[in-house]
Amino acid sequence: MEHFVYHNPTRVVFGKGTIAQVRDLISPSEKVLITYGGGSIRNNGVYDQVMAALSGRDVLEFGGIQPNPLYETLMQAVEIVKRQKVTFLLAVGGGSVLDGTKFIAAAAHYQGEDPWDICAKEAPVTSALPLGSVLTLPATGSESNTAAVISRQSTNEKLAFLSEHVYPKFAILDPEVTYSLPDKQIRNGIVDAFMHVLEQYATYPVGAALQDRQAEAILMTLIEEGPKTLRNKTDYQARANIVWCATQALNGLIACGVPQDWSTHAIGHELTAFYGIDHAESLAIVMPALFRHELGKKQKKLAQLARRVFGVNEADDARAAELAIAKITEFFHSLGMPTRLVEHKIDPGEAAAKISARFRSRGAVMGEHGSIDASAAEKILLAC
Amino acid sequence: MEHFVYHNPTRVVFGKGTIAQVRDLISPSEKVLITYGGGSIRNNGVYDQVMAALSGRDVLEFGGIQPNPLYETLMQAVEIVKRQKVTFLLAVGGGSVLDGTKFIAAAAHYQGEDPWDICAKEAPVTSALPLGSVLTLPATGSESNTAAVISRQSTNEKLAFLSEHVYPKFAILDPEVTYSLPDKQIRNGIVDAFMHVLEQYATYPVGAALQDRQAEAILMTLIEEGPKTLRNKTDYQARANIVWCATQALNGLIACGVPQDWSTHAIGHELTAFYGIDHAESLAIVMPALFRHELGKKQKKLAQLARRVFGVNEADDARAAELAIAKITEFFHSLGMPTRLVEHKIDPGEAAAKISARFRSRGAVMGEHGSIDASAAEKILLAC
Repeated sequence: MEHFVYHNPTRVVFGKGTIAQVRDLISPSEKVLITYGGGSIRNNGVYDQVMAALSGRDVLEFGGIQPNPLYETLMQAVEIVKRQKVTFLLAVGGGSVLDGTKFIAAAAHYQGEDPWDICAKEAPVTSALPLGSVLTLPATGSESNTAAVISRQSTNEKLAFLSEHVYPKFAILDPEVTYSLPDKQIRNGIVDAFMHVLEQYATYPVGAALQDRQAEAILMTLIEEGPKTLRNKTDYQARANIVWCATQALNGLIACGVPQDWSTHAIGHELTAFYGIDHAESLAIVMPALFRHELGKKQKKLAQLARRVFGVNEADDARAAELAIAKITEFFHSLGMPTRLVEHKIDPGEAAAKISARFRSRGAVMGEHGSIDASAAEKILLAC
Repeated sequence: MEHFVYHNPTRVVFGKGTIAQVRDLISPSEKVLITYGGGSIRNNGVYDQVMAALSGRDVLEFGGIQPNPLYETLMQAVEIVKRQKVTFLLAVGGGSVLDGTKFIAAAAHYQGEDPWDICAKEAPVTSALPLGSVLTLPATGSESNTAAVISRQSTNEKLAFLSEHVYPKFAILDPEVTYSLPDKQIRNGIVDAFMHVLEQYATYPVGAALQDRQAEAILMTLIEEGPKTLRNKTDYQARANIVWCATQALNGLIACGVPQDWSTHAIGHELTAFYGIDHAESLAIVMPALFRHELGKKQKKLAQLARRVFGVNEADDARAAELAIAKITEFFHSLGMPTRLVEHKIDPGEAAAKISARFRSRGAVMGEHGSIDASAAEKILLAC
C-alpha cells in the first residue's frame, strides 16, 4: 500500500424528502446563488422544493449550465457573484452543474488574470466561495469530491482541476428526485461510476487488500442494482443503491494508497470535446481498446476482477484479464451502452489522427505508468 | 436503505514516517497537551518522534491514561487544561487514550455541574477542545469517529458518549509504530474491528447492497490479513491493511442507512467493568451466545455472511447462519482468542446474575429490535 492522505469533509444527507433540510444547512445570513442546468429541475419539482426550503432567504439564480459545462457560460455567473456579492453557491443538478459551480467558486476568488489558467495551467486555487449541492443525477461523484471538468467552446478543450477548497459543504442525495431521469442518463451514470472505479482499480497490485475489496464492492453492486433500476425506475432501493455507488466511486476512498490510471478519461474527454458524445459514452468506447493495449501491465488486477466480481474460473491471469474486459463490455451492452466509435458514426481513423495530434502538441503522457503517449492513444483510438 | 447523514471530517495521514507531519497539522499558535497511556510510547520511539516534530512549540504532557480510561484520571487532565489554558489536545496511543482524550476535550468545555453526566445522563456536548491523534494500536476506530467509552472506578461503570464535536481533526496512522505491540493486542485489535463490523452488519436486511458489501470487504480483509500480521509482525503490507480495516470498521461509513445492534458491546462492557477482561475478549465471549439467542432475527444477514465471506455452500438460511457463527468463532480461535467465560475463570452464573441485575435496574433494552432486556442478557451470559 502506498502512503496517502484521506480527507473528505462533505456532509452527505441521504434519503427521500431530504431537500427541505437545505434550510438548516445554509446559514440565514448567506446570500445564495442557486446554479442549475437546462431547466429539468423546474419540471420534476426539485426547483420548487429548493425554493420552498429557502423561502424568505436572500436568493439569486443562474440557470443554463450545459452538460460539459462551458467556461464561457460560467464566467457570466462569476460576474453575477462579484456584482451581487454572493456568499454561497447552491448547485442543483448533476455532475455538470456541480463541476461548473466548483469552477464559479474558484474563479470568483481567483486573483490571477485569466481563471481558465486554473484548468489549463494548473494555476493554484488558494480559496473559493463555499458551495453546497442538491444532486439530481447519480454519476460523477462530484457532490463529495475535489474535482471538476470544464470545457471551453472557443478552443474545443475539456480540462479538469482539483482543489480541496471546492469540496461541497454538503450534498443532499434524494434518490426519488432521480426517478424522472431518462434511461439514457441512468445508463450513463452507471457506466460512469463503473469506470471511475476501474480508473482507480485496474492498474497493478500494491497489496491494498481492503481498498481492492471496497472497489469490488461498488462494481458488484452496480452490476446487481443497475439493471434493476433500469427495469423499474421507481424501485427506491435499487435507485438508492445506484446513487450511493456513484458517490462512493469517486469520493477519494478507494483511491487511498493505490495507483490511479485516468487515461480512459483523458482520451474520452477528447472524444467529447471533438464529437460531443456523452462523457460515459466516451469511456465505454475507449476502455476496452485501452485495456487490451495495456493488458500486460494490467493483467493481475483485471484477472482478480474477473474472478472476484464476475466469478470467472480461469487460473491463467492473461486469459482471465481478457475475460474481464469481455465481461465488462457485455455488462455495458446489457445496459444499452454502445462501446464502438462506429456506433456513434465516428470514423476511428479521423478521431485517432485529430486526438493524437492534440496529445502530441501537449506532450501528453497518461496512465498509471505514464506509458500512454500520443502514439499509444492513436493506436488505441484506431481499435475503438 | 434507511435515511442517513454521513459526515466524517477527520484528515487521515497514512504511511510509514508520517508522524513528523504533526508539525504541519497543528498550528504553531496552539498550546498543546500531549496525552498518552502507560509509557510504551517512550520505549517504541513514538514519544521521541512526536516531541521532535513539536520541538520549539508550547507543549505539555499528561501520561497514565489507563486501558478502559478512568474518569477519575481524566478529570486530572481537565484540571491541567483549564489551569494551563491548553488549546489543543494531541492523543498519542490506542483507543483508550483516544477515548479518554475525547472526554477531556468535552469535559473541559462542559458547562454543567458534573462532566460524568456526559456519559451517564447523555448530557449534550455543545463544544469541545480540538484534538488530533497519533495512533499506535489499530482496533477501535476512535481515531476518526465521534465515540468514546469511559469507565468510572468508584462505581464500576463503563459508558459511552457520542459527539460530532470530538471528531479528531487529524489521525496519523503509521503502521510501523505498531510493530512493537504484543501479539495479544494485535489479536484484540483484529477481533475488535471484526466485531465493530458485525454490530453494524449482523442485523436484518434493508436493501443496502453497497454497505453490505463494504462491510464484507472489511471482514474478508481481516480474515486474510490478520493471520499474516500475527505470523510476521514486520510485514508492512499486512499490518497496514489491518490498521486501515480497523479505521474503516468504525468511521461511520458502513453504518450508513442500516440498522445497528451494539448489544454485544453493551454486555461486553459490563464484563470488562466487573472482571477487568480486555474489551475485545469480552466481545468474543458474548457474540456467539448472543447471535445464537437472536438467530431467528439475524439469520438472513448471518446466512449472507456465511456464503459471501466464508464461502459456505448451504441453501438453508438457518443452517447457514449457524455455520456463520461457527466460522467466526473458529476464526477467533485461530488468532488465539478465547470465546468462553470459563477460559477467563469467570463463573457464568455469577456474571449473569450480577450483570442482569444492573441491566434490570437501568431498565436496559438492547439490540437492533430493542428486544434484548435484562432477562435475555441473563440467558445469553449463562450460555457464554
